Amino acid sequence: MDSLKKKIVEEGSAIGTEIVKVDSFLNHQIDVKFLEEIGREFGRIFKDTEVDKIMTVEASGIAIACLTAPHFGYPPVVFAKKAAPNTMNEGFYEAEARSFTKGTVSKLKVARKFLSEGEKILIIDDFLASGEASVAMAELVEQAGAAVAGIGAVIEKGYQGGSDRLREKGYRVESLAVIRKIEDGVITFD
Amino acid sequence: MDSLKKKIVEEGSAIGTEIVKVDSFLNHQIDVKFLEEIGREFGRIFKDTEVDKIMTVEASGIAIACLTAPHFGYPPVVFAKKAAPNTMNEGFYEAEARSFTKGTVSKLKVARKFLSEGEKILIIDDFLASGEASVAMAELVEQAGAAVAGIGAVIEKGYQGGSDRLREKGYRVESLAVIRKIEDGVITFD
Repeated sequence: MDSLKKKIVEEGSAIGTEIVKVDSFLNHQIDVKFLEEIGREFGRIFKDTEVDKIMTVEASGIAIACLTAPHFGYPPVVFAKKAAPNTMNEGFYEAEARSFTKGTVSKLKVARKFLSEGEKILIIDDFLASGEASVAMAELVEQAGAAVAGIGAVIEKGYQGGSDRLREKGYRVESLAVIRKIEDGVITFD
Repeated sequence: MDSLKKKIVEEGSAIGTEIVKVDSFLNHQIDVKFLEEIGREFGRIFKDTEVDKIMTVEASGIAIACLTAPHFGYPPVVFAKKAAPNTMNEGFYEAEARSFTKGTVSKLKVARKFLSEGEKILIIDDFLASGEASVAMAELVEQAGAAVAGIGAVIEKGYQGGSDRLREKGYRVESLAVIRKIEDGVITFD
């Protein structure tokens, strides 16, 4: 997605060789009009895919998933939580995920009642790096006996192997911008 | 907002006398089409208000703020973070907020570059209870020398005093549904 690559170059910045910072439009400040374009692009890419529900993980994935939903006929969006609030008093599915940028391990949780057997779940997230969050979400889906309809990431850090890991598991993975390399502050795409 | 009260009664549930659970459409599973209605309602209520930016707090506020933005000409949405990621390597504003449902105290953070002097900030959140999150967000806005254009909450728990506290500070507070009482599992609105 050329407009996304352009936006990453113009507004983003690289930290070292691993981290790309896009907090001006994606994960701290949000450019809603631009995210509508991103949602439309996911709609185009997955247009022949049956989607009963869209799943993401708090916090940055929520905006993207919500702006993607209109392009699939407004299926429910479910976001996995990193901590269980005291209102989550019923059963939930749980899977471990490591956050590369926060250096933490989270246990992603989804209430059982929001994932059902046989449902086709489109997983959407902001970043795909080593794939830990997506793998964890796919695990939640499979714990419920539901099926992963596809995995869509806005930005993939191609050199961290996440998409390979996910494709080896048989999932369809689509990233809107794949970063090949970050060197001397310069971001190079596939 | 009658459709909201109806939805709370039909899909929500009460826990004890304090907590109303709306995880089927607002803060775990999200009904995007319904949140578009909520965004439109905030647009109507604050239609004469100048808004440069919409501010909320992760995670549940994000969807609401993003679906409100189109009704104000797509201003940037900024969400306060409860933990600083290691990409937040520049200065930030910070204010304390207590979560009623999680029983925790969070330090809300916003990068300084995303709040500027003189800006008019509309604060949007899912719940207004004792007002801790909104007070903390208003503090962040004022630390930046910006102004609170208004505070919009989807659901207010009127008996917890938050809106009174905020109005005493001179803020305009608008809640789409005000709960007066929860008793024997029955939710009563104002």
